[in-house]
Amino acid sequence: MKTKKFLLNEEDIPASWYNIVADMKNKPRPMLNPATKTPLKAEDLYPLFAKAIAHQEVNETDAWIEIPEEVRDLYKVWRPTPLVRAYGLEKALDTPARIYFKNESVSPVGSHKLNSAIPQAYYCKKEGITNITTETGAGQWGAALSYAAKAFGLELAVYMVKVSYHQKPYRRSMMQTFGAQVIASPSMSTKAGRAILTEHPNYQGSLGTAISEAVELAMQTPNCRYTLGSVLNHVMLHQTVIGLEAEKQMEMAGDYPDVIISCFGGGSNFSGISFPFLRHKIKDGKDIRVLAAEPASCPKLTRGAFQYDFGDEAGYTPLVPMFTLGHAFAPAHIHAGGLRYHGAGAIVSQLRQDGFLEAVDIPQMETFDAATLFAQSEGIIPAPESAHAIAAVINESKKAKEEGRSRVILFNLSGHGLIDMAAYDQYFSGDLSNYELTDAELAKTIDGLEKII
Amino acid sequence: MKTKKFLLNEEDIPASWYNIVADMKNKPRPMLNPATKTPLKAEDLYPLFAKAIAHQEVNETDAWIEIPEEVRDLYKVWRPTPLVRAYGLEKALDTPARIYFKNESVSPVGSHKLNSAIPQAYYCKKEGITNITTETGAGQWGAALSYAAKAFGLELAVYMVKVSYHQKPYRRSMMQTFGAQVIASPSMSTKAGRAILTEHPNYQGSLGTAISEAVELAMQTPNCRYTLGSVLNHVMLHQTVIGLEAEKQMEMAGDYPDVIISCFGGGSNFSGISFPFLRHKIKDGKDIRVLAAEPASCPKLTRGAFQYDFGDEAGYTPLVPMFTLGHAFAPAHIHAGGLRYHGAGAIVSQLRQDGFLEAVDIPQMETFDAATLFAQSEGIIPAPESAHAIAAVINESKKAKEEGRSRVILFNLSGHGLIDMAAYDQYFSGDLSNYELTDAELAKTIDGLEKII
Repeated sequence: MKTKKFLLNEEDIPASWYNIVADMKNKPRPMLNPATKTPLKAEDLYPLFAKAIAHQEVNETDAWIEIPEEVRDLYKVWRPTPLVRAYGLEKALDTPARIYFKNESVSPVGSHKLNSAIPQAYYCKKEGITNITTETGAGQWGAALSYAAKAFGLELAVYMVKVSYHQKPYRRSMMQTFGAQVIASPSMSTKAGRAILTEHPNYQGSLGTAISEAVELAMQTPNCRYTLGSVLNHVMLHQTVIGLEAEKQMEMAGDYPDVIISCFGGGSNFSGISFPFLRHKIKDGKDIRVLAAEPASCPKLTRGAFQYDFGDEAGYTPLVPMFTLGHAFAPAHIHAGGLRYHGAGAIVSQLRQDGFLEAVDIPQMETFDAATLFAQSEGIIPAPESAHAIAAVINESKKAKEEGRSRVILFNLSGHGLIDMAAYDQYFSGDLSNYELTDAELAKTIDGLEKII
Repeated sequence: MKTKKFLLNEEDIPASWYNIVADMKNKPRPMLNPATKTPLKAEDLYPLFAKAIAHQEVNETDAWIEIPEEVRDLYKVWRPTPLVRAYGLEKALDTPARIYFKNESVSPVGSHKLNSAIPQAYYCKKEGITNITTETGAGQWGAALSYAAKAFGLELAVYMVKVSYHQKPYRRSMMQTFGAQVIASPSMSTKAGRAILTEHPNYQGSLGTAISEAVELAMQTPNCRYTLGSVLNHVMLHQTVIGLEAEKQMEMAGDYPDVIISCFGGGSNFSGISFPFLRHKIKDGKDIRVLAAEPASCPKLTRGAFQYDFGDEAGYTPLVPMFTLGHAFAPAHIHAGGLRYHGAGAIVSQLRQDGFLEAVDIPQMETFDAATLFAQSEGIIPAPESAHAIAAVINESKKAKEEGRSRVILFNLSGHGLIDMAAYDQYFSGDLSNYELTDAELAKTIDGLEKII
């Protein structure tokens, strides 16, 4: 076998993040104040976020933003991550396609989420903030932020979507091991939580509700800020270390991707792997496809509406321009908890609107079929979220085979599934189902949107 | 921060394993046929193991044994592993010691066990064997072998110690994801299992019993062989890739270890990290300490007897010269399932007898204290087994601080604990206890030994 992994050294960790907004002809529309419907400035975000983060959020001019030395030092715990040639998968698929994946699962918390958790905790610490809050779905983001908070000596409260709190107790334990406080959401600790529990006592939670609770706690706690693991522009920014490294590594491999694939929840790992490559398409018209793989039960990019919508269920956040299924949308309880979010971030939504990316949606069972094939051929058990990307890769590889031509596929393995084995158990025992959003459900959730703005 | 990780490239994966026996002045005593008490030759092991493995087991002459190309290719899935400078832990301990660890937890199954699983599966495949059996405690070995068996297209049956089968369902699911059949031991599927279940219907199993069952199944199945993840000489041999890489990496770091520490079950990760360094002590009298960290509940090296003993509970295996607590010893149900074994391998036992290594035993609670400090300072949640090494590292670092002098400590992080979070839950909830072997219990188990030979 020829080289399997393409490795970089610590000095190859990018010195700057890439801010794609600076290069976009059509900028994403601004976030709006929900009361006045006027665009938000960085200063308007100060109560919610660290100032440095607020400025990154609205930065439309700087294509490159320097990564602080303290952040790069912590990136060294696991970065650079390997780019891997998936010889095993290629063989199993008997495809002429050359498949590469960026292995973000080697992070000590098992996913790409640390890439943004570390700078967010760093900026808070630097500005004298002592407490932070956040929400988490499957727990990937919560686990990452728990370690980052501990590394910078911040107190952290995490609202974890109730269904995941019970389905994935091990991720809750991880957060507790790193010293975070974890609360099942909806909870009685916030007005937003109490309101939804009063109306639906057995509600198992959603990311939208957990965000409402985390925002509310942050606003009511002295010296406290809120943090978010996806959707927002600054998160996309931080995640570009993935694609920047991958670009160098594809060069080492002597190859260039025809198509870049990743799973899609709010857009964090998707943006991370694809934006550095997309810049050549945006700036120079480079011929490259970018493909988002969504769950069939939560298909905002494939079937949602491009609208201003709230980021959370209770309507605490600014209005964000997004492909959305509506902020009150309650997605089915699929195991890919990290993809159960109603909207796509503003940048991705604008790029989608402008035709720079494609999206497919994939039923749950197909993602576990793909995950098992990948595990058996590459040795790595993928997270249920990442399995969506793998399913899309397999479909692309089959097409390449049918067409009888080669194709270079790069995908992001956003995380491993070692904490998600209960989901695999269910799959093997035949207890897993597909959840597809019906046209009637879609019409209902989309119709509600018209009232927002 | 200066360099944190010392990384090698795929071409630096060792080309040969190191066979320490060739350099030992006092060779380990031979395994004996239990009926005739005569030394076993390679041929005597053919019914049990692949022939190549049988020859490696008794090889006393070749210091270097070439690693087959197919094995090195699969090593590339995750090797070389990083050597990491534990700046975070050093800071948390405020110690003048310089602490390094070899991070074997980055393997896709989360531990060092793949290092031997791959060659064992490879040699079986090469010799036309179609089925293999094994036992597993915590499931680290079973998970590794499951992937290796799948990679070479072998059918695998794993006997998993019953207490772990229930305590660690996620590792069972991992094995199933890779396509292995997993049976809780003791089971009704073997004579050995039925015998012990008849006498003790609620017996929760031990590695010794699971070995008996796996051996019995291998002997009664056509074209089937048995495999073992620790204790035997060929396993120690395969694991030396750890220390051989670490030697190069310590050189990159411009440092040399004063003491090498690892946890101790049967000796696989211990031998892997230490034998390549020990060769300089054996051959050239190099001043280096090697320290094994055992559980206080299963202290064969610190408190066991050096004796011929069976490797399994039912007495199916050859007699092995080992520091042992007796093959009928039933260790307490600590969470470090991989360390719940009654004996130390023949090579390690001889080295221990000849004064080449030290051992300490550590109570369970102290290992979880150490694990939590490590997680919070380095970001990696260690396996309960590896936590024994970390506890010993902390004790050595404290000594260095008391003595006011620096010291270079190298330890092996044999695996991560992401599949062991239930153990951390128990620890945080105060439900965890220490289990120390009393003198009376020790006397009883050791007394039994006299009858063996």
